[in-house]
Amino acid sequence: MNLEEKVKKVEHIFDGVVVDLDVETVELPNGKTAKREIIRHQGAVAVIAITSENKMVFIRQWRAPLGQETLEVPAGKIEPNEDPSITAMRELNEETRFEADKMEFLNSFYTSPGFADEKMYLYHAINLKPVTNKLPQDEDEFLELVELSLPEVEVEISKGTICDSKTLISILYWKMMQ
Amino acid sequence: MNLEEKVKKVEHIFDGVVVDLDVETVELPNGKTAKREIIRHQGAVAVIAITSENKMVFIRQWRAPLGQETLEVPAGKIEPNEDPSITAMRELNEETRFEADKMEFLNSFYTSPGFADEKMYLYHAINLKPVTNKLPQDEDEFLELVELSLPEVEVEISKGTICDSKTLISILYWKMMQ
Repeated sequence: MNLEEKVKKVEHIFDGVVVDLDVETVELPNGKTAKREIIRHQGAVAVIAITSENKMVFIRQWRAPLGQETLEVPAGKIEPNEDPSITAMRELNEETRFEADKMEFLNSFYTSPGFADEKMYLYHAINLKPVTNKLPQDEDEFLELVELSLPEVEVEISKGTICDSKTLISILYWKMMQ
Repeated sequence: MNLEEKVKKVEHIFDGVVVDLDVETVELPNGKTAKREIIRHQGAVAVIAITSENKMVFIRQWRAPLGQETLEVPAGKIEPNEDPSITAMRELNEETRFEADKMEFLNSFYTSPGFADEKMYLYHAINLKPVTNKLPQDEDEFLELVELSLPEVEVEISKGTICDSKTLISILYWKMMQ
């Protein structure tokens, strides 16, 4: 069965800093039309960073959409024309002051394909160590670094502080590395 | 450190069927203000459904934001005041014509906490079997049912057909159940 929806019209609703919003009118396989609300995002990376003490590195930050603090793996948006592995190395430096010998690509995935095109590239930072050349940090970004063992991770999941898809995927990969 | 951002103003940009968009003006911990673009979503469920032949049940569908077909685990939006386990049973029936003795809750997570409040509840369908009472299907929803073994799943991941966060999390849980 051909499932394709043909785009008939695109209405640009919003151009933001992080997201844009389009409403598309599409033709369904049965010839009828429907509306699709689509969030456009430039894509992002997430990094599994494990210390020599076998702890995972997390960022504590405020998440406005949730109205709460979370613990998430280091992550950030891909700049235009930036290779995702470079983004991963840069964000790890900026957010955690760690660097790695290399970034091993594990997987990529769309975070919410029903309404958004955000694609997330997941890397494993190989041979983690303190940075020698500190990249400048955003003065309006408020972060705290937290290192947790696997049992401590389980506690934070049950408390709801660790609560997002990229971080859960990272932890599941980490478990499989044990 | 107190990381909280205090909401000073909310501007409603868009009220849609699937998403709403707000732009919030927030006060940062250092007293400065910033804008936050926030997608509001009613939340959703995803279901790990494993057949008696040890295959995972997937839905093939067109995803407008990606402009491609995907294979995803059965999933759907939570209706107002609906218990997520009821949503899970309903969506499994509507999308796959399977039902389960019960829905075991595995985890919940925010799909993209940087810009969206969508919360996903993940269930494992216990004792999968064909439905006895078929719930009505949406005539404008075009789906195909696909059952895959774990090696077949790995092929679809490498081809990029299996490519979203809830489905990847489901597969990682399934691997740990083997």
